[in-house]
Amino acid sequence: MGPNSISRLSAEGLGTLLLTYTLAFASAGGVDTAIASAGALAFLYWLLAGASGAHLNPIVSLSLAVRGKLGWVDAALYTVAQLVGALLGGLLLWASAGDAVKPAFLGTSGEVASGDLVKALVGLAIGAFLLVGAYVAFEGAERLLAGLAVGTAFGLAALTGATGVNLAKVVGADLTYTISGGSVAWASIWVWIVGPLVGGVLAAFAVPWVTSQIPSATADAE
Amino acid sequence: MGPNSISRLSAEGLGTLLLTYTLAFASAGGVDTAIASAGALAFLYWLLAGASGAHLNPIVSLSLAVRGKLGWVDAALYTVAQLVGALLGGLLLWASAGDAVKPAFLGTSGEVASGDLVKALVGLAIGAFLLVGAYVAFEGAERLLAGLAVGTAFGLAALTGATGVNLAKVVGADLTYTISGGSVAWASIWVWIVGPLVGGVLAAFAVPWVTSQIPSATADAE
Amino acid sequence: MGPNSISRLSAEGLGTLLLTYTLAFASAGGVDTAIASAGALAFLYWLLAGASGAHLNPIVSLSLAVRGKLGWVDAALYTVAQLVGALLGGLLLWASAGDAVKPAFLGTSGEVASGDLVKALVGLAIGAFLLVGAYVAFEGAERLLAGLAVGTAFGLAALTGATGVNLAKVVGADLTYTISGGSVAWASIWVWIVGPLVGGVLAAFAVPWVTSQIPSATADAE
Amino acid sequence: MGPNSISRLSAEGLGTLLLTYTLAFASAGGVDTAIASAGALAFLYWLLAGASGAHLNPIVSLSLAVRGKLGWVDAALYTVAQLVGALLGGLLLWASAGDAVKPAFLGTSGEVASGDLVKALVGLAIGAFLLVGAYVAFEGAERLLAGLAVGTAFGLAALTGATGVNLAKVVGADLTYTISGGSVAWASIWVWIVGPLVGGVLAAFAVPWVTSQIPSATADAE
Repeated sequence: MGPNSISRLSAEGLGTLLLTYTLAFASAGGVDTAIASAGALAFLYWLLAGASGAHLNPIVSLSLAVRGKLGWVDAALYTVAQLVGALLGGLLLWASAGDAVKPAFLGTSGEVASGDLVKALVGLAIGAFLLVGAYVAFEGAERLLAGLAVGTAFGLAALTGATGVNLAKVVGADLTYTISGGSVAWASIWVWIVGPLVGGVLAAFAVPWVTSQIPSATADAE
Repeated sequence: MGPNSISRLSAEGLGTLLLTYTLAFASAGGVDTAIASAGALAFLYWLLAGASGAHLNPIVSLSLAVRGKLGWVDAALYTVAQLVGALLGGLLLWASAGDAVKPAFLGTSGEVASGDLVKALVGLAIGAFLLVGAYVAFEGAERLLAGLAVGTAFGLAALTGATGVNLAKVVGADLTYTISGGSVAWASIWVWIVGPLVGGVLAAFAVPWVTSQIPSATADAE
Repeated sequence: MGPNSISRLSAEGLGTLLLTYTLAFASAGGVDTAIASAGALAFLYWLLAGASGAHLNPIVSLSLAVRGKLGWVDAALYTVAQLVGALLGGLLLWASAGDAVKPAFLGTSGEVASGDLVKALVGLAIGAFLLVGAYVAFEGAERLLAGLAVGTAFGLAALTGATGVNLAKVVGADLTYTISGGSVAWASIWVWIVGPLVGGVLAAFAVPWVTSQIPSATADAE
Repeated sequence: MGPNSISRLSAEGLGTLLLTYTLAFASAGGVDTAIASAGALAFLYWLLAGASGAHLNPIVSLSLAVRGKLGWVDAALYTVAQLVGALLGGLLLWASAGDAVKPAFLGTSGEVASGDLVKALVGLAIGAFLLVGAYVAFEGAERLLAGLAVGTAFGLAALTGATGVNLAKVVGADLTYTISGGSVAWASIWVWIVGPLVGGVLAAFAVPWVTSQIPSATADAE
């Protein structure tokens, strides 16, 4: 661990905490959820990208590790920090919202019927393609644009119903619901890991290829 | 075809795929559809404009060709790539949303009664005027502003009911609905070609004239 | 008239036409109307501010003339161009929306009961204070920020119910409704002139005073 | 008091007046309230940050005073100017909205049952953490980004139900409702002081620590 690791992991933990907490209040679906998701991630990216990259989601960190843009040890530590942050965010939700803390509010994973498996995997993969594609494409762009792009990508994923593309938020919700006495269908959690990872890794390779063939045009001319 | 053509056509195809896929989830009309349309096109413009111009719509490519800003071969290839992308986006919708894939969700073209013909043509022409006018006016502006402007123009077109201003999305929806067993009123499709083309070509000539008479003021002073 | 006057007046006319046309589709009130108003004016400001200042509203032009920032002949010509543009926008609405062209959709002025006079005047004055204050404060700022600020100010005015702060849009709607066979309460139109003018002129003097006392801080440091 | 104090206090007063007035029209809760809150504060920050910092909220001024970024005399004067502005905004609401001026519309403080005390304090503290964290983190950033970030933070606080995180707006609403003949539960007002102050002071120390450990990354590279 380098000397700045504690600060970076604090940033990932704090950001995922705040993301998990705020997004529970916009979980009804549709354009409202998309707007809230975009605003929350854009803000946290502006705030924290300079410290840690503001992944706030193991799918992002792991996809970037597969692409060779993040070390595997860092990806593992990021994942732990994100899960801890999401759990703390869930517990704060429990403290401030009380009885309102239910699966639909928290965004728990839920059971996936075998007939819906392909639908769920395709939807989550496309959502993660948008999100990870934005992280890869706007790395090094000016902070204002990069935050808007990453936030909008997350909002578009939420618009298509793929709010579960943030694995930390899903697991944090599941853990919080379990602790608060609820029962979670852990047997289906692999869907929220495999679907987004396939889409995220695909984006980490495809998006740079599509956008980087013309060097002069992809350079930030702003 | 120049050496970068495959990358450019990939960008048009991928972008139109993602646009067709995401916008199906915000097809109820009104301000919600406008916001989703604006966000989706702004994001894809930021992502892909450096590679291909991010037209993602044959109306934009053909209007720019009439204006002399894009070669006719390129415009034809762009159109094919956009239609292929939109069809793939429609098929992914079918895979992830299943039975929800119906005309209102997809945004198919539909039949136009003769009494509504002028209304439909005027509405689509004004929508295309806004969209193509933005592409022409913000060519060469900084990426952040250009994407916001192009996206907002598309959102305003959607606000006025002219979501069908994107010809690739309309044809992709029609083909997907046909493949999924539905019946499409192909006889009216010319309305979605003629109306937007008239508005788009008009904008390609009128907007530069209105905005370029005072050179020092139109230069990007940012 | 200077050599660029035709271009400037074309910009005011075209912009007011597009503003009048698009905003009719978001006249239900509340946050939706605010978002549409903000998006429409921001886009048109980005597009046309370099050509004419993108006032698109006689209240803005006249307030700036009182403040000495626009000649009176220009203000008069701008007003005529804005009214012509708004009327053309109203007629295009009639062509594309047909029977939907009714007072609530168009945003006509309506009758004001004597008991509601102070309320209406105060509301319109505060709305114009926000709008004209933004034009004055962000003159010379970078185009992206200035458009966002002017658009947001118009959106906030709409949020408070003061959509009638755009005098061209109101008169254009009244004329369109009269032409389409309706009856307009022209006796109350002075409310839409006096209220906004009081707020606009107040802003044209107060906002620069409040924001310009510390020269180094108000300079655009971006 | 330095020579610029009148201008600075005018900016705080005018800004809080406009914020209190506009936000009353978006008090129904949910994403709509969040969007309106974000837009209003972003606009006023762009307009007034150069003059006074655009705190528009005693919680912001006092948290920055605890952190040593604002003198205590200034913080006290800012608080007075903000409360006067909020009261004037409330009185203008009364003049323009008349009978609509009721607790839910104004956003008065209300009574807090002892069983809900922890919930209310936690919710307000997290909302203030977001808001004050944004003021601290984006001090010195470009005006466009800083306003978007501060506005979005306020919007996210509103999304979570913590609209009462602006103490001036709450007290201004309470005073207006009292003057208009209503009865306010002043005994609970300490909740709106203590909760936000704890969150705000925590953010004023924690956010710089998390975001400033890697100097080169936190510098504004735009």
